[in-house]
Amino acid sequence: MNNMVLKGDIAFTPTKDIMEIHKNSYIIIEEGKVVDICNQLDNSYKGYLLKDFTGKIIIPGFVDLHLHAPQYPNMGLGLDKELIPWLDTYTFPEEGKYDDLDYARKVFSKLIKDLWRFGTTRSVVFSSIHKESTKLLMNMFIASGLGAYVGKVNMDRNTAEELMENTKKSIEDTEEILKECCESDLVKPIVTPRFAPTCSEEMLSKLGELAIKYDVPVQSHLSENTSEVIWVKELFPNSKNYASVYDEFNLLGKTKTIMAHCVYNTDEEIDLMGRNKVYAAHCPYSNYNLSSGIMPVRKYLDKGVPVGLASDISGGNSLSIMDIIGGTIQASKMKWLESNKELQPLTFNEGFFLGTKGGGSFFGEVGSFEKGYDFDALIIDDSSLIGLNELSIEERLQKIIYTGDDRNIIERYVKGIKIEEPFTS
Amino acid sequence: MNNMVLKGDIAFTPTKDIMEIHKNSYIIIEEGKVVDICNQLDNSYKGYLLKDFTGKIIIPGFVDLHLHAPQYPNMGLGLDKELIPWLDTYTFPEEGKYDDLDYARKVFSKLIKDLWRFGTTRSVVFSSIHKESTKLLMNMFIASGLGAYVGKVNMDRNTAEELMENTKKSIEDTEEILKECCESDLVKPIVTPRFAPTCSEEMLSKLGELAIKYDVPVQSHLSENTSEVIWVKELFPNSKNYASVYDEFNLLGKTKTIMAHCVYNTDEEIDLMGRNKVYAAHCPYSNYNLSSGIMPVRKYLDKGVPVGLASDISGGNSLSIMDIIGGTIQASKMKWLESNKELQPLTFNEGFFLGTKGGGSFFGEVGSFEKGYDFDALIIDDSSLIGLNELSIEERLQKIIYTGDDRNIIERYVKGIKIEEPFTS
Repeated sequence: MNNMVLKGDIAFTPTKDIMEIHKNSYIIIEEGKVVDICNQLDNSYKGYLLKDFTGKIIIPGFVDLHLHAPQYPNMGLGLDKELIPWLDTYTFPEEGKYDDLDYARKVFSKLIKDLWRFGTTRSVVFSSIHKESTKLLMNMFIASGLGAYVGKVNMDRNTAEELMENTKKSIEDTEEILKECCESDLVKPIVTPRFAPTCSEEMLSKLGELAIKYDVPVQSHLSENTSEVIWVKELFPNSKNYASVYDEFNLLGKTKTIMAHCVYNTDEEIDLMGRNKVYAAHCPYSNYNLSSGIMPVRKYLDKGVPVGLASDISGGNSLSIMDIIGGTIQASKMKWLESNKELQPLTFNEGFFLGTKGGGSFFGEVGSFEKGYDFDALIIDDSSLIGLNELSIEERLQKIIYTGDDRNIIERYVKGIKIEEPFTS
Repeated sequence: MNNMVLKGDIAFTPTKDIMEIHKNSYIIIEEGKVVDICNQLDNSYKGYLLKDFTGKIIIPGFVDLHLHAPQYPNMGLGLDKELIPWLDTYTFPEEGKYDDLDYARKVFSKLIKDLWRFGTTRSVVFSSIHKESTKLLMNMFIASGLGAYVGKVNMDRNTAEELMENTKKSIEDTEEILKECCESDLVKPIVTPRFAPTCSEEMLSKLGELAIKYDVPVQSHLSENTSEVIWVKELFPNSKNYASVYDEFNLLGKTKTIMAHCVYNTDEEIDLMGRNKVYAAHCPYSNYNLSSGIMPVRKYLDKGVPVGLASDISGGNSLSIMDIIGGTIQASKMKWLESNKELQPLTFNEGFFLGTKGGGSFFGEVGSFEKGYDFDALIIDDSSLIGLNELSIEERLQKIIYTGDDRNIIERYVKGIKIEEPFTS
């Protein structure tokens, strides 16, 4: 029946402006979902498994809206380069290796283990162009118990020779995955044109059709870098702007959609994303590392665009959403200065929200502990971080995010199931 | 005699543009100093203690040019505020506690333990206004074996009541420390006016005299935040600019000097720092957290100003110079964009240099493995970070800085002495 009660200091952000805190309370889980939070345990929950985490903090699991699994071996490498030369020198050669399933298994097991370690309970992932390694990645996520959307990458132009796909074959491979890999409740396929410059119009058009036909979500990249924006303008001279290229091919919100980066969108493009309820995946470290710029997150929030956070491995150099929440708040402060103090910095609360419910909502009722939400949770032992002064639970959370690391996460849950370290044998 | 040989992959930056790498080599230490690096071990070193770190990387210890010891309990707290309200709400109340030596001992032992953990072998530290806790901090550094300059803070205006000093008493207390605490080779006093706005002209003048009389270095804050710069202009209407306030009182390079932050200095002020060989301590995370801005490090390097890195606890949220090297490179990329691509981003090499020899040179021949340099070193085990692909030593270093943490540091040395974890009992 998977019913249980966890006791501890419970904290979550039902909205970006509210931190709900229940000190020394009980959270009741039935069938993997939150049914209540209370100060005293009712008799009706007497038969439930009780886990006592008194003194520990219970928070929602972290959500990573954008990362590239096959780039994991390159994390931290070659960051003296900008986007396009970095892709050519580091990324494409690495992504070319994933027709080797043994190599893929080695990389993916390290990646999934580390996602587990850093408390990322759900993620949205680019695989490579390779069908079989994409299926392998999905099966490995299923085996781990963590949630994920996983996309086979499509690209049929402007890339390294070994990664250049035949358009027809690329679409067939994609369709095979959409048909075959739809059994899991937690791990699902997602249509993944790499980005407009590496996809022909035919490719984009067919992918839009597939997304609608199988009612699956879409992910891609949008307006990461100024040279890229100019390049797209040259490649698609008849489109109004970069975002509308995707829109014209039914890849911008016809089904649930994530666009990574969104540093250089115009107001018109942001409005379009807002109308179409397209998610922006904010990747602050990647945008620093590749000298891209800072996404004006405040503007997206003000315009009603859903926003979540992302590691963007390996443009980003950290898998830890804890780090990335801190980096997001820091980046927003630099954007505030850059915008002549127009775009207000993100608060701690907003950063925490973006790293949990902000991205979690892409998966449904995920990333919060409101009634009916999936119980995706982390148990945090912050005893190594505190003890010099009396702190409120909110201050302890600040310390965890700004100064803690994976060592402070002692248990992870997805849909009420405790997730053990994967692939240990 | 303290003579020894360490074997491993040796890496250091004699200049900001050169990474010297000796694969599988021997570094020879006599009397705590580097005397040679060689591929094959000469017979003349046969009697030396040989430590075999084959497969590990040996790098210089990290140097932190600016942090506030008594603020350590606040690390990660209250970062939704800007500099001045943050000082009033968090910093000053915390710093008021350090007349309590038991409390001070508790905080300082945690801080020094963590400096050790993160591989910071030398640091330049603000204490509080309290004489006794400043002496305690110096003695605790001596007991740890780590190197430090430690300064009793002086302030006699514009601060919280409990931190407001009587000018005469403040100078007497400072002079007592300068006289008494000069025995250690590794831990030394430094004259520490908090910053111009909290010091009367009389205070600044007397501190300049003390620095010269005892030939001790000076540290303070300079041009961190725009409101602060305006405030200084109001307080010192006759001074040409902020830097010249210190200069007029013999506090800007008459003896070795560090100025923290330097975000908003004019070209004229930077030139003055260059002429006076005044160090700029770059605190990227602090400058993000308190919405201060990004220091144009490239400009300082171009103008010949010595630059080192700093955590600025607790404006900064990480003690790790590894993190701060990464953050420094990232910040320089945003500065590149901000400067219309005029100020070139820092390279990995430059970041590594700033975190080792850049700051280390403030201590003398520290932060490099050139002949005659103090053997301050870290032994790095990066096996948890690599293994998916063959990497060069330089690529391994990139992975260590961008993705590693304290768990990768397995031994620390200062002047040839292995430093064990302090205050464990």
